Amino acid sequence: MAEIPAVPLTLEGSFVLHQMFRLRRPEWRALEERHAAQIVEEGARALSGIEQRRPAEAHPNQSAVYSLIGHKGDLLLVHFRDSIEDLHRAELSLAHLKLFDYLEPVHSYLSVVELGLYESSAKTYAQLIEQGLEPHSPEWNTAVADVIARQSVAMEPRLYPEIPGARYVCFYPMDRKRGEQKNWYMTPMPERQRQMHEHGLIGRRYAGSVRQIITGSIGFDDWEWGVDLFADDPLVFKKLIYEMRFDEVSAVYALFGSFYVGLRIPAAGLPRLFDGSFA
Amino acid sequence: MAEIPAVPLTLEGSFVLHQMFRLRRPEWRALEERHAAQIVEEGARALSGIEQRRPAEAHPNQSAVYSLIGHKGDLLLVHFRDSIEDLHRAELSLAHLKLFDYLEPVHSYLSVVELGLYESSAKTYAQLIEQGLEPHSPEWNTAVADVIARQSVAMEPRLYPEIPGARYVCFYPMDRKRGEQKNWYMTPMPERQRQMHEHGLIGRRYAGSVRQIITGSIGFDDWEWGVDLFADDPLVFKKLIYEMRFDEVSAVYALFGSFYVGLRIPAAGLPRLFDGSFA
Amino acid sequence: MAEIPAVPLTLEGSFVLHQMFRLRRPEWRALEERHAAQIVEEGARALSGIEQRRPAEAHPNQSAVYSLIGHKGDLLLVHFRDSIEDLHRAELSLAHLKLFDYLEPVHSYLSVVELGLYESSAKTYAQLIEQGLEPHSPEWNTAVADVIARQSVAMEPRLYPEIPGARYVCFYPMDRKRGEQKNWYMTPMPERQRQMHEHGLIGRRYAGSVRQIITGSIGFDDWEWGVDLFADDPLVFKKLIYEMRFDEVSAVYALFGSFYVGLRIPAAGLPRLFDGSFA
Amino acid sequence: MAEIPAVPLTLEGSFVLHQMFRLRRPEWRALEERHAAQIVEEGARALSGIEQRRPAEAHPNQSAVYSLIGHKGDLLLVHFRDSIEDLHRAELSLAHLKLFDYLEPVHSYLSVVELGLYESSAKTYAQLIEQGLEPHSPEWNTAVADVIARQSVAMEPRLYPEIPGARYVCFYPMDRKRGEQKNWYMTPMPERQRQMHEHGLIGRRYAGSVRQIITGSIGFDDWEWGVDLFADDPLVFKKLIYEMRFDEVSAVYALFGSFYVGLRIPAAGLPRLFDGSFA
Amino acid sequence: MAEIPAVPLTLEGSFVLHQMFRLRRPEWRALEERHAAQIVEEGARALSGIEQRRPAEAHPNQSAVYSLIGHKGDLLLVHFRDSIEDLHRAELSLAHLKLFDYLEPVHSYLSVVELGLYESSAKTYAQLIEQGLEPHSPEWNTAVADVIARQSVAMEPRLYPEIPGARYVCFYPMDRKRGEQKNWYMTPMPERQRQMHEHGLIGRRYAGSVRQIITGSIGFDDWEWGVDLFADDPLVFKKLIYEMRFDEVSAVYALFGSFYVGLRIPAAGLPRLFDGSFA
Repeated sequence: MAEIPAVPLTLEGSFVLHQMFRLRRPEWRALEERHAAQIVEEGARALSGIEQRRPAEAHPNQSAVYSLIGHKGDLLLVHFRDSIEDLHRAELSLAHLKLFDYLEPVHSYLSVVELGLYESSAKTYAQLIEQGLEPHSPEWNTAVADVIARQSVAMEPRLYPEIPGARYVCFYPMDRKRGEQKNWYMTPMPERQRQMHEHGLIGRRYAGSVRQIITGSIGFDDWEWGVDLFADDPLVFKKLIYEMRFDEVSAVYALFGSFYVGLRIPAAGLPRLFDGSFA
Repeated sequence: MAEIPAVPLTLEGSFVLHQMFRLRRPEWRALEERHAAQIVEEGARALSGIEQRRPAEAHPNQSAVYSLIGHKGDLLLVHFRDSIEDLHRAELSLAHLKLFDYLEPVHSYLSVVELGLYESSAKTYAQLIEQGLEPHSPEWNTAVADVIARQSVAMEPRLYPEIPGARYVCFYPMDRKRGEQKNWYMTPMPERQRQMHEHGLIGRRYAGSVRQIITGSIGFDDWEWGVDLFADDPLVFKKLIYEMRFDEVSAVYALFGSFYVGLRIPAAGLPRLFDGSFA
Repeated sequence: MAEIPAVPLTLEGSFVLHQMFRLRRPEWRALEERHAAQIVEEGARALSGIEQRRPAEAHPNQSAVYSLIGHKGDLLLVHFRDSIEDLHRAELSLAHLKLFDYLEPVHSYLSVVELGLYESSAKTYAQLIEQGLEPHSPEWNTAVADVIARQSVAMEPRLYPEIPGARYVCFYPMDRKRGEQKNWYMTPMPERQRQMHEHGLIGRRYAGSVRQIITGSIGFDDWEWGVDLFADDPLVFKKLIYEMRFDEVSAVYALFGSFYVGLRIPAAGLPRLFDGSFA
Repeated sequence: MAEIPAVPLTLEGSFVLHQMFRLRRPEWRALEERHAAQIVEEGARALSGIEQRRPAEAHPNQSAVYSLIGHKGDLLLVHFRDSIEDLHRAELSLAHLKLFDYLEPVHSYLSVVELGLYESSAKTYAQLIEQGLEPHSPEWNTAVADVIARQSVAMEPRLYPEIPGARYVCFYPMDRKRGEQKNWYMTPMPERQRQMHEHGLIGRRYAGSVRQIITGSIGFDDWEWGVDLFADDPLVFKKLIYEMRFDEVSAVYALFGSFYVGLRIPAAGLPRLFDGSFA
Repeated sequence: MAEIPAVPLTLEGSFVLHQMFRLRRPEWRALEERHAAQIVEEGARALSGIEQRRPAEAHPNQSAVYSLIGHKGDLLLVHFRDSIEDLHRAELSLAHLKLFDYLEPVHSYLSVVELGLYESSAKTYAQLIEQGLEPHSPEWNTAVADVIARQSVAMEPRLYPEIPGARYVCFYPMDRKRGEQKNWYMTPMPERQRQMHEHGLIGRRYAGSVRQIITGSIGFDDWEWGVDLFADDPLVFKKLIYEMRFDEVSAVYALFGSFYVGLRIPAAGLPRLFDGSFA
């Protein structure tokens, strides 16, 4: 009987770009007040335009503005789009605004909304092998493409999500460890499936208070995944991630990058933010 | 019988922001003297205003100013507040002062005062399991919420502390190691409880000469905890941390970030500090 | 009988230089509009000149322009040339353009197109040893040089490739791990050959949708290899690399550097790009 | 019988600040010549004042100036003082000189002269335990304080040293490794004592040609110790450290930071140094 | 019988400083053309003066200029001198040229030409122990000093080499690994000798096409050794280092830093280089 493939099926949706900017404060402060006001209002108008769900489009394709806490940056923009080209278009048109002469890009992250299908991969692979199909044979590929197509339709709202309206965002990238003894990618599929299942149970307990969007970034950026958490009470970020850290898949296999915490700002509130206050 | 949860209960209190700034010395020195004096006095007034315990508020919600030793920065501001929004408000309003055009933010740390309840977690979990409760069942959650509520009241002064008046501060972030063989998060609860207990005994021997505030930063910043030590004799920082380094939980599981050492400066002393001297 | 050499034969072709630039936006934006237009048109003309296959030369010796997504840079130039001197000539003559006063070099990568000959190394080494030749003896060296000469002719189009016209590029550097237990360079030749063979099978399944160019950089830059993927659908980058990550040679032995994703821009489109849009 | 404490006794003396500066050469060179001369002479006078043993003080409390080799910095100042406050006072008063507008602080290191008492810790602990004393009991603490007081008096010249007059300095920070298998802080006291003893024997063979000052920096800076070597023949730095690297305590447990090599410059020679030459 | 010392004898010769500079292109380009020409010609004259073998000195004491490929720098200067003071003198006098206001020092490396005497150490140690001498006894030291003195004379041309005239240079620093299981410095002397011998055999096969200069930097810079390879065909760098990577001493124990590749430029060619072309 053929060997079960090691690679779980994944669904992909919106491409996502996180942009972190630092305000060049001394240069900004040197501007004549009325001039500064015009610049920030132009910026606010442009950002307001991409903050809303795009009426003419099938998917939300929104952007959101966050004010970052601490020295890692002043502004975080998060863009969801149907393609990398659309993301790049947004990036270039913002860079062309006068406001962005005063915003230094200090970090960014490119990824795509991803749903990992550990359970249905296991089921699908088992069925196809029972049917005597050889992995990667044309029949196998057709059957797998079928599963993916069906699931993509069913999952569409989660694949192309609106940006949650929560007050706080927490973003961080992560990898699965490939250590000399503990190597996620050499762990057998059923064991990975079991650990991911338990991992999911924790997340479910927080479903009411935090919204999580996982994006895949293998081939796009320097870590394997990006995680966005959205919540009104930021303490939940700590509670959830601390609890997960004792979970086997995180305790043993997770590597984390930098954490960014931001407060949602309506684009129209940008002039106020640049004046030193927020809602 | 149900399995004891791996996650110890924690109490959270004030949110804390550490801000490290470097003085843009050449730009500052280029200012006309009277102008510089006005700028630093305006800054000193603003900082004086947030240095005191807030009379109208239940918790101290103070800020403190430290002059940093060495090249890692010139000024350290430490803010304790009831929420991240309050921290961000403080951060933005300071950034809006003219003084902060000459202060480059070089580092920061976002965390929340945390008390880890290893002992009472163990007791509580044992009791609830003896009562036949299932972890995370509604009854379990109610019972746990009860313990947390009671302890939070009892611990309030430690959860929302005044900033100790000591002459020196030492701040550093830390992680618990998740190595291939030595992994804190895979260590059984009773073993962790034992190690934390021994760790606490060392701290207690230094109680008279150093005050320690532990803040949790999982989900908020790049390390898992931040540690602030406050003492009049800075040699105690070395003695305490060196002794702890031989302690099992530190020797085997602790990873440390950068250490920042500062001298407490009353906000009103800022003009003097900018003139090159301190009390 | 003599021991089989551990080092696989490799063929080398074009030398390759990747250059990543960040646009000094504030300085660029401060230029008078007509002046900026002249500068970018001069740059576009120069880049157009090296974008085409060089008619008088045996090998394509092309350059290509990509607009980078995110903060890692704004422009990626990729040059294929017959020698490092030719690459350096291109680098210097571009640096001499006025446009490059506004382009800060933030990263680069020097490497050479490489084809690893695991299969034919194994065959050749086995034959020569059967013939009783001693590795590195003059007869051995002559025989090996022969194999390399023949293969180089056969592989010429792959050794001196045209730059694929695909819409997207993904570039990243990588190493083979030399860990304390898992050390690629101490793994026996047949085992490495087996793993590389399986690795190649995955690549072959993506042959229709992605073009891959491997370059070697041992002795030239900070990683051992550079990988360029070219595709019209960037999702394929993720699919391919994710699938390969479960492959033994990648799961156990691969270390990856930063990933750069860019959109192909015809050099003649540079003025448009600097105006904030692309095709 | 009580367990022997793991922590060796240490003696502490002068606090030490290393400051590494880079000359902002273009800004410095843009100065009008006479103006530059005045600035550097004022700086030289101030540094000359703190270069000498302080006549009114019990301890030398000196500073020294070194010209650094290579790109890591241009100037290294080393200050020995009785307290961190005194170090900070020196730091602030230097920063206030016009010269320091042209000196960018690129690195620094805060530490305290430390003598580790492995031998006498072992003896003292053994005696006290034989006397039936409990570690950390009041009687134990008194006895230990006694040992420290006596040794501090005996060691005073080594605890508060003059800065050796040697032509070259070599400074580097170091840690003791806490690996998963090799962990200095989990190594039994007698074994650490044995290794430190052998380590000391090597140092003693170089006593005639190199002077070594060890400073502890746990709780003060990012490494556990700082090492200063002073010698007239810099080749001795290499000979000594290479020989020590084969020593068990270094081979297995030492982690090293950056190495800084400087040439001693009398403060009065600073104008000459800024003119491009030295004695 | 006494134990054989673990430390191999080494011979030292010229001190070497590598300096990597980045041209401040926008500032350079802003210069009036005739002014720029004067500046670069003054620089070329000064560098020409130190490029030649010093006629009045016993050792060559030369400097060489390389144009670096890629973003790591624009210019590499390599200086060989009899002492660190002589290197520092060269460094300071170059820094004083107007040209160097436009050259930002981005990296450097300080080391000393080193010949490791594994074979003759083994022989010498064995003889002396057979003669009943105790390591580090006065008789032992005299005998060892004798060997070093004799070998230093014999090896003088290799200890104080002329800078090879080859078209390309490749420079990189390296360490020997001190891992938890694989630790070069805990490997017995005969085993290290065997591995170094095999390592040398590979080098010898490339003797005709590449010249290698090893410099030791323990106690001088951040890695243990610096390696310079000189060749007319840069592909040889890759061939040689790739082959060595499979060698036990490299595969298991070598850690590599950044690689710098440069093209030799006669100092007199500097004005042409600054004009954007080379020979």
